[in-house]
Amino acid sequence: MPGSSFGKAFKVTTFGESHGPAVGVVIDGVPAGIPLSKEDIEFELSFRRPGRLFVSGRREKDEPEILSGVFNGRTTGSPVAILVRNTDVISSLYEEIRVNPRPGHADLPFIFKYGYENWDYRGGGRSSARETVGRVAAGAIAKKLIMHQGTVIAGYLKSLGPVFSETKDFRSALCSKYSPVRAPDKETEEAYEKLVKEATVEGDSYGGIAEVIVENVPKGLGEPVFDKIKADLAKAIMSIPATMGFEYGLGFRASSMKGSETNDEIIKSDGKVRWAKNLAGGILGGITNGERIVFRCAFKPTSSIRKPQNTINVKTGEKSTVSVKGRHDPAVAIRGVTVAESMTAIVLADHMLRNGNINPAKISQEEADTIQKNWERYLRECTRMQESQ
Amino acid sequence: MPGSSFGKAFKVTTFGESHGPAVGVVIDGVPAGIPLSKEDIEFELSFRRPGRLFVSGRREKDEPEILSGVFNGRTTGSPVAILVRNTDVISSLYEEIRVNPRPGHADLPFIFKYGYENWDYRGGGRSSARETVGRVAAGAIAKKLIMHQGTVIAGYLKSLGPVFSETKDFRSALCSKYSPVRAPDKETEEAYEKLVKEATVEGDSYGGIAEVIVENVPKGLGEPVFDKIKADLAKAIMSIPATMGFEYGLGFRASSMKGSETNDEIIKSDGKVRWAKNLAGGILGGITNGERIVFRCAFKPTSSIRKPQNTINVKTGEKSTVSVKGRHDPAVAIRGVTVAESMTAIVLADHMLRNGNINPAKISQEEADTIQKNWERYLRECTRMQESQ
Amino acid sequence: MPGSSFGKAFKVTTFGESHGPAVGVVIDGVPAGIPLSKEDIEFELSFRRPGRLFVSGRREKDEPEILSGVFNGRTTGSPVAILVRNTDVISSLYEEIRVNPRPGHADLPFIFKYGYENWDYRGGGRSSARETVGRVAAGAIAKKLIMHQGTVIAGYLKSLGPVFSETKDFRSALCSKYSPVRAPDKETEEAYEKLVKEATVEGDSYGGIAEVIVENVPKGLGEPVFDKIKADLAKAIMSIPATMGFEYGLGFRASSMKGSETNDEIIKSDGKVRWAKNLAGGILGGITNGERIVFRCAFKPTSSIRKPQNTINVKTGEKSTVSVKGRHDPAVAIRGVTVAESMTAIVLADHMLRNGNINPAKISQEEADTIQKNWERYLRECTRMQESQ
Amino acid sequence: MPGSSFGKAFKVTTFGESHGPAVGVVIDGVPAGIPLSKEDIEFELSFRRPGRLFVSGRREKDEPEILSGVFNGRTTGSPVAILVRNTDVISSLYEEIRVNPRPGHADLPFIFKYGYENWDYRGGGRSSARETVGRVAAGAIAKKLIMHQGTVIAGYLKSLGPVFSETKDFRSALCSKYSPVRAPDKETEEAYEKLVKEATVEGDSYGGIAEVIVENVPKGLGEPVFDKIKADLAKAIMSIPATMGFEYGLGFRASSMKGSETNDEIIKSDGKVRWAKNLAGGILGGITNGERIVFRCAFKPTSSIRKPQNTINVKTGEKSTVSVKGRHDPAVAIRGVTVAESMTAIVLADHMLRNGNINPAKISQEEADTIQKNWERYLRECTRMQESQ
Repeated sequence: MPGSSFGKAFKVTTFGESHGPAVGVVIDGVPAGIPLSKEDIEFELSFRRPGRLFVSGRREKDEPEILSGVFNGRTTGSPVAILVRNTDVISSLYEEIRVNPRPGHADLPFIFKYGYENWDYRGGGRSSARETVGRVAAGAIAKKLIMHQGTVIAGYLKSLGPVFSETKDFRSALCSKYSPVRAPDKETEEAYEKLVKEATVEGDSYGGIAEVIVENVPKGLGEPVFDKIKADLAKAIMSIPATMGFEYGLGFRASSMKGSETNDEIIKSDGKVRWAKNLAGGILGGITNGERIVFRCAFKPTSSIRKPQNTINVKTGEKSTVSVKGRHDPAVAIRGVTVAESMTAIVLADHMLRNGNINPAKISQEEADTIQKNWERYLRECTRMQESQ
Repeated sequence: MPGSSFGKAFKVTTFGESHGPAVGVVIDGVPAGIPLSKEDIEFELSFRRPGRLFVSGRREKDEPEILSGVFNGRTTGSPVAILVRNTDVISSLYEEIRVNPRPGHADLPFIFKYGYENWDYRGGGRSSARETVGRVAAGAIAKKLIMHQGTVIAGYLKSLGPVFSETKDFRSALCSKYSPVRAPDKETEEAYEKLVKEATVEGDSYGGIAEVIVENVPKGLGEPVFDKIKADLAKAIMSIPATMGFEYGLGFRASSMKGSETNDEIIKSDGKVRWAKNLAGGILGGITNGERIVFRCAFKPTSSIRKPQNTINVKTGEKSTVSVKGRHDPAVAIRGVTVAESMTAIVLADHMLRNGNINPAKISQEEADTIQKNWERYLRECTRMQESQ
Repeated sequence: MPGSSFGKAFKVTTFGESHGPAVGVVIDGVPAGIPLSKEDIEFELSFRRPGRLFVSGRREKDEPEILSGVFNGRTTGSPVAILVRNTDVISSLYEEIRVNPRPGHADLPFIFKYGYENWDYRGGGRSSARETVGRVAAGAIAKKLIMHQGTVIAGYLKSLGPVFSETKDFRSALCSKYSPVRAPDKETEEAYEKLVKEATVEGDSYGGIAEVIVENVPKGLGEPVFDKIKADLAKAIMSIPATMGFEYGLGFRASSMKGSETNDEIIKSDGKVRWAKNLAGGILGGITNGERIVFRCAFKPTSSIRKPQNTINVKTGEKSTVSVKGRHDPAVAIRGVTVAESMTAIVLADHMLRNGNINPAKISQEEADTIQKNWERYLRECTRMQESQ
Repeated sequence: MPGSSFGKAFKVTTFGESHGPAVGVVIDGVPAGIPLSKEDIEFELSFRRPGRLFVSGRREKDEPEILSGVFNGRTTGSPVAILVRNTDVISSLYEEIRVNPRPGHADLPFIFKYGYENWDYRGGGRSSARETVGRVAAGAIAKKLIMHQGTVIAGYLKSLGPVFSETKDFRSALCSKYSPVRAPDKETEEAYEKLVKEATVEGDSYGGIAEVIVENVPKGLGEPVFDKIKADLAKAIMSIPATMGFEYGLGFRASSMKGSETNDEIIKSDGKVRWAKNLAGGILGGITNGERIVFRCAFKPTSSIRKPQNTINVKTGEKSTVSVKGRHDPAVAIRGVTVAESMTAIVLADHMLRNGNINPAKISQEEADTIQKNWERYLRECTRMQESQ
């Protein structure tokens, strides 16, 4: 039974392999009336693009083509299909991997599951991070859609290898979009860049932690008892390549504390019921409480590294080594931030539709205007933040 | 859109509130021919039962009734419905909570989502941990089913509040079943018990971390790219009340390491392709690689505590305090171990069916015998381990 | 992969076998705030009850117990579970069938699919029409829910064996509820009753056609391109035991006509855009157009008959005969009308939620009042119609 | 909530509008190892191609591009995406329809549902039969997959307008592929062609009935109680544009008969348990019994006709007429046969996977050879049948 679809009301299906003709996505469940352009999608794709400084050398433009579901600049209610051609592929680099599976990669599991003869070994095939192009394209639409509620998502790289940044505010996260290492401030950026350069020289890689913050979250999102918002976020995030852990609010820290410490005081602020410290990361009982959603996810280091590693040759059954010569990110977590944001947007779009916050068939002209206005402010704020840095 | 079902091939739907007539579960997708008795379900339910030493004082027997899907001691292929009556409920204790929502609980989010007038405030209603009775009953069937592949699940409490135990082997985890605090050894047990007693005296509670280990995992489980086994486990675990985080293998630790450290060597051992240290916790590319699955989840402290806490009275809108007088676990993580095991079993049963390891319509007499034999060994091993402690 | 659930937003899962402890249903996706009582469900169940004149002699009261999801007379947003105990079962009658499968029944297919040893042969087990108790209970809730939009469903028996009634109006259909043979008028009732008596004497049975009419249908229901309203209705109806065909509007007749005849004129009537003759049965392009939904379904004769029939003894493999001695309807189509109505209600409730006509989380007090007012009018109209006949 | 996906194990998602850049499909759930070429898909697409004699004048080549999921001529287990560009579109013809909705078409329902401003009115947009390109492409893969079990599907046009053909055998149905009007024999072909010519001259259209026959059906397909094979076939067929009715086996005729007539005798033939007359069309209790599946579906006449029809101008609200000038089939049922076959293949592929007949992850080389051998025989038999006519 297949697993390439995500979401129930905002339903995302990705397709495509690293070195096949194209990658893409079909999004079913986009209400009619959303203003949507190719540029909206390109904007988000630009932040996961390989070929930026310090990430994988693959230099594709990632030009999206909207194949359906949009007419005269608005969604029609029909599925939106988006296609991105693969243009910069050098498959010959992967002949070595075909017989010498990479120790930390999906090579052997894919062989176990689908059979050696059926395995598309070129560039990781379906398990390549290239698949996330479809997620980010869908995420762009989701990000626009949730602006119906004024909701904005910002992620940044909270740690890279041994370097941690102090938790930063929403604005710093937003500004990290234009940092080549998704750092929330200049100081952290320099530290991250140093690590990335070292890793590149050594032919090694680093792990990292992404933190995602969501502002203006409507209350009441999440469907007990299995489709809690924390559960769907966890699944969304843990479906991203290289993720090893997920936590929200206090996260693992809560496990060593007392109830009297982790129970957040309910207060009144500006006439509104609020939680004093948002220790719960915006989620209680699996339902959003109106506070900012805050969660973190751990990315392992890129498993494809130049350093030789021990493996077993699948033809001979003998000990062997593999040194990965393709172009790879020194830290997959950097681009992972964009993918984590996108998956968050997809979850929230799905749950806003499921909870009745947005009409699933169509939105009004007024609602469309709100979305477009919020989107344009978002574009401006990303830009301005960068300039002010 | 509703969220009370989990799984695609082994599909679990729970129902029931803490103080309603009953809680229960319907499991659709159980192949015909599985030997199944009421005792099998009672066995697993006994480990989440409230009223055991050190956990909530509620003393229900949790007697399951199998309503359908079983005939002459075997499953028939039709949905299995299991009912557990609620017998020991004192709803009057909850009148205070009705107007003074608990700070760390789902009270206010439920009011936001479903409306104050429609809220079943008695004992947490649908958000109560009582709902997990259905999960554990379904988990019992799942645990039997996956014994078709020889797969066995064992969980234990890796930490309670500030006390951590050294990682223990599979057998210690199995033996923790008969520890009232799910400790993997006597020394840890004493330390945990001390904390629990302190918390009970103080009217406070502790968080904890559960670790789950799965032995004899078939290779190839997990469906790219969204229904990866790590993603479905994360969702399953994060849908459990009070969970705040999930990680597998190296988990968050991997984020501070280098690729050359986290990439596990592929070796040959006893003629089989293996991973040297199982740093990936049995999962690569979101697919099982045949090594043990190992993951951890963080539980926050029980949010219902006797200590007074600040809140807002929803009637008056004024500041208020709430002191929870119902019977509550000093550490929800203790019973959480059983629920985590159950959800793991459900995910694995679902994926074995999805991957074709088990025929979805019926199993043979020989397969039924294997299941029953493995189940009886499991019962014996749980018992023997306890005695040897 | 299991198939005991229906619907995406209003999700119905039935369980239970004919001679097991109970049958029942879980409905996930009922918004909070719907007024709901046990009597509402009993009302609808009373029209599918066996033991009424002219239908199966089984005399169960079919007393429903609401196990969850309702508090203080309103739905809470949590799944509603309803249980009906099986009380009047005589399984010994089925020993003959165990070895002599009935020619027109599901006996052999169940043996093929699930294995002879796992087959619950008593009273048809899961394939018995008794399973539809759960559908009708869920249908009662669905019928109430769609009264949010003023939508009312009425079905009647359009034909029984060779006797056809002239198409009747909505009111006649509504009145058929209190006819023991679901006839739309007295004349037809007499003709149907005559057939039923003959069949009973002969130990034979008759087929029939149910017609369902839906009044006050919101425009725009149906989700292209697979979940068209006509597709979901067809599935819902064809999932009912003994159905052999489905058609809506002109149905099969349209296939022998010209486009200039079947294209219904669009007109203006009372300032509204209407279709002149409703030849399309309220559905165009798979989407409701605001006109009445009209469809028909064909039921085959009850396959369990007293007349001896040729079969094969599954033990000996020799030719054999079977004469079914249990109590069975002389025409399953009679009770089938109620089940068809129920499945229609479930489809419409599902699509109203999917299309955004009703908030999926909760309804307001005002909306609850509308529902209750419409429901009470419905109860009155059913009654009054009968009296006026 | 979206509706552009069909199937649970073999999951088909279509996208694209009549006059957008492209139409296409993503099929998730194709096991690895199936031999698949572009030619396989072109073969099936050729039978729904517009521009063949007697059907719509649109002359697109319908060249499919396989974007993913196939490597070295075999499926990889990853989703298969197929794209067909729209090349021959004249949108200007549709400006009249934009304000004068066609009486028997989805124009107004789409406006009701998605809003006038968001409506892609060009060529019917998403409601155009052009969408079925994706279904037929997916159907080609499904047809190959079910050859794993030796299963072959053949459809033909049983009636066109007032002309009925006598029921023909499987071979005649297979041979109808090369008849421009899908007639099962030469005599019927001439009668159909005469009607088609008349309709074309008159600017009118005809309805028709397609019959689909499936040979070598495995026993046990269908999942009680909602995903019965008859229910899923009904949904699949009734989701096709212009379908008005569905029946299998005796169909509506059974409703006027007695149980002693419709109950098919169980006999032994060649040592196998069989049903004497296959009155049930291969389906009992919603599960296949091993006999041929036989069903019929009614297509209404093409609703787009040249003859002027009364409508309402949506801008002025005044009475108006519309005469459809685009190129349209004189009988949509002709191409409908191919689409009905395709949907049947998709349902059977889905249920073979759901029932465990085919491993969902991968097939062996031997199984791949069987599929390819059966496929080639199918190609030959289609061809030879035509020659022998």
